[in-house]
Amino acid sequence: MRKYYCNERRMRDKIKTFSKYGHTAKGGITRYSLSNEAILAREEFIKRMKGIGAKIQFDDMANIYATIEGTDKNAKRIVMASHLDSVKNGGNYDGILGVIGAMEVLETIVSEGIKHKHPITAMVWTNEEGSLYPPAMMSSGVLCGKFDKEKMLNSKSIVDGKTTFGEAIQKSGYIGDEKNRLNSNDYKCMLEFHIEQGPILEANKKEVGVVTCVLGMVNYRIKTYGQADHAGTTPMKFRKDALYAGAEVLIYIHNELDKLDKDLVYTTGEIKCHPCVHTVIPDFVSFSLDVRHENPEVIKEVVNVINNIPKEVCKCRVECELAWERDTVYFDEELVKLIKESADELNIENQYINSGAGHDAQYVASILPTAMIFVPSKDGHSHCEEEFTSVEECTAGASVMLNTVLKVDER
Amino acid sequence: MRKYYCNERRMRDKIKTFSKYGHTAKGGITRYSLSNEAILAREEFIKRMKGIGAKIQFDDMANIYATIEGTDKNAKRIVMASHLDSVKNGGNYDGILGVIGAMEVLETIVSEGIKHKHPITAMVWTNEEGSLYPPAMMSSGVLCGKFDKEKMLNSKSIVDGKTTFGEAIQKSGYIGDEKNRLNSNDYKCMLEFHIEQGPILEANKKEVGVVTCVLGMVNYRIKTYGQADHAGTTPMKFRKDALYAGAEVLIYIHNELDKLDKDLVYTTGEIKCHPCVHTVIPDFVSFSLDVRHENPEVIKEVVNVINNIPKEVCKCRVECELAWERDTVYFDEELVKLIKESADELNIENQYINSGAGHDAQYVASILPTAMIFVPSKDGHSHCEEEFTSVEECTAGASVMLNTVLKVDER
Repeated sequence: MRKYYCNERRMRDKIKTFSKYGHTAKGGITRYSLSNEAILAREEFIKRMKGIGAKIQFDDMANIYATIEGTDKNAKRIVMASHLDSVKNGGNYDGILGVIGAMEVLETIVSEGIKHKHPITAMVWTNEEGSLYPPAMMSSGVLCGKFDKEKMLNSKSIVDGKTTFGEAIQKSGYIGDEKNRLNSNDYKCMLEFHIEQGPILEANKKEVGVVTCVLGMVNYRIKTYGQADHAGTTPMKFRKDALYAGAEVLIYIHNELDKLDKDLVYTTGEIKCHPCVHTVIPDFVSFSLDVRHENPEVIKEVVNVINNIPKEVCKCRVECELAWERDTVYFDEELVKLIKESADELNIENQYINSGAGHDAQYVASILPTAMIFVPSKDGHSHCEEEFTSVEECTAGASVMLNTVLKVDER
Repeated sequence: MRKYYCNERRMRDKIKTFSKYGHTAKGGITRYSLSNEAILAREEFIKRMKGIGAKIQFDDMANIYATIEGTDKNAKRIVMASHLDSVKNGGNYDGILGVIGAMEVLETIVSEGIKHKHPITAMVWTNEEGSLYPPAMMSSGVLCGKFDKEKMLNSKSIVDGKTTFGEAIQKSGYIGDEKNRLNSNDYKCMLEFHIEQGPILEANKKEVGVVTCVLGMVNYRIKTYGQADHAGTTPMKFRKDALYAGAEVLIYIHNELDKLDKDLVYTTGEIKCHPCVHTVIPDFVSFSLDVRHENPEVIKEVVNVINNIPKEVCKCRVECELAWERDTVYFDEELVKLIKESADELNIENQYINSGAGHDAQYVASILPTAMIFVPSKDGHSHCEEEFTSVEECTAGASVMLNTVLKVDER
């Protein structure tokens, strides 16, 4: 079978162009789903896809589908999908690179006149990050039956606490027909191309990661309850300081989890404090705990640690609330094999890898054969303005996706 | 000399009435300075003071003065002053009780026809808490030369980050003439009546505290700098987690300061975290440290502890920034003696006490003879909705202030 390569110059142009929409002063982007900045990026995607003759469709969650026909009108579509929204002060690669890669695959097929039987689709998922309207992976969750659509439409902006996702999607003008949704009757499989968001590929000097699974995880809210009193007038022995207690519990969790499996990752990323005034002893603190590992036995050990956190610390009551959990999701074995073959045939250094981050692909895996392709993240950084992957690596990943799509097309 | 008593029924009515302006659902109040709620409380004050024939004046910081004339038109005014603004979710006593007490003293003098030589003034300070427009004690700071007025007018709302205190004061309609300011030519002395905001009077079963000083303090911002990375994909050994580091430093500070003098009080009440998202390792955390003690030698030991905090914790850089400091302020000996005499003569159980909290009185002490009177705080709580002082204790404090004013009037 012939090998095809994507075009570095064209990739560079797209990366640069999309980096303008929502750019921060420091080289990154803030592009919340359905924001004005995201609308500009959607328009750019549609303009370019129309330019190569793709047919544009939307579904009822404002997901966008750009499809080029194949020689068999009745064949199922092969879809490559990612997202163009970002976290606050995020970078120019997370999500958008998968959209750019999918565009590049279609552009290469059209410009080189590569014959294919199946229709091939570049797809944009709405609100993968959930940065403004939680939760993350909202649209794939709705399409794959993980989330209730009505509840999602009622998700409120974390900035103003009022605007709902339903209002934002209405205002966007991107609502299409529910019958356009990604589904197993009309689609053969889905590929998602993404940055690794970790340091492993770079450390191992690989250009591409062949993703085998998305790690299982548990997410908790740890809460401490104290008593608000005046900072200057309450003797230390009378105090119930919820932030002092919260800090002790946070350190306790770090100490205990560090004793478990070396591949375990866990994060206490978000903290709330009330009333959060320098002259008042805090009466309430809560922080998030996000824990991920492939092996459910290790996750059980983590749950054990959480359950054994003392119920009272520094005279403050402690509560641990499970926010959500998910099992490890394994990708389609056949697709994973084709990705590996494609990378090997192109002489692109590659390795198997798992995904610590969540992706739309993990939900789609429950309705369609699905797999993912990773490229390196410089210094392992992501969800930050410093995100960087070289154009060479970005194009290598797109080329692997292109050849995988063509292998699938022959089956 | 005759002894006079304030009226419990009248006090109860005023406490209840002012508790309506800015009330929360949970029995407390949020009444930021110059807010609509604060304006309602100002109108209530003015209405009642006009009702007993007091002359109303404002100065250029929107402070309000309600004055009843004495028999000597040329005598200096004796002023009783406090504030009617609150912290967020504060209580019904901090600040407002001093205003109510000053009103009650004037009402008692008028209703009982008590003869007095000096004009006597009930005064409302603008923006003592600084809850919306920092800093605290803004107006007394300006009048006593501690703060630059122009800088204060540029203080921005902590809620919207835009509105300035200058705009709020203009909008309030309470701006008066700068020549109406409290000053040492026209005023003889100032008394401030306040809740203790601590547990000492209650523990010692005293109704009144005779305040001798306001504690010296230092206030720091402790900052940790990490690296923002993805929660699911960054192996633990690669991380620089600013919140983990911040928690370690917070615990370190607690451990070290607990070794110093038993009367030392310190608080880490406010914390900021960036980006504060559960899927991102924090790259920046800062928290406040507020430390108070009467003895400057103990404060020196505290500064030593801060200076010895390691410069790097959990691979994160640590910075400690002095935000402000103040020396212990001692009140006027003669006034303190007259307060003690008044309480003893009224057979009100009392003791000497210091103030851990800051008050407008501490600035005024630099331009006028000044002193304070405390009443107990139930369970020592303040700056919270649970604040409570019985009407009997509130009235006892007002009676001590009344008799002190009358003693000063004879001098």
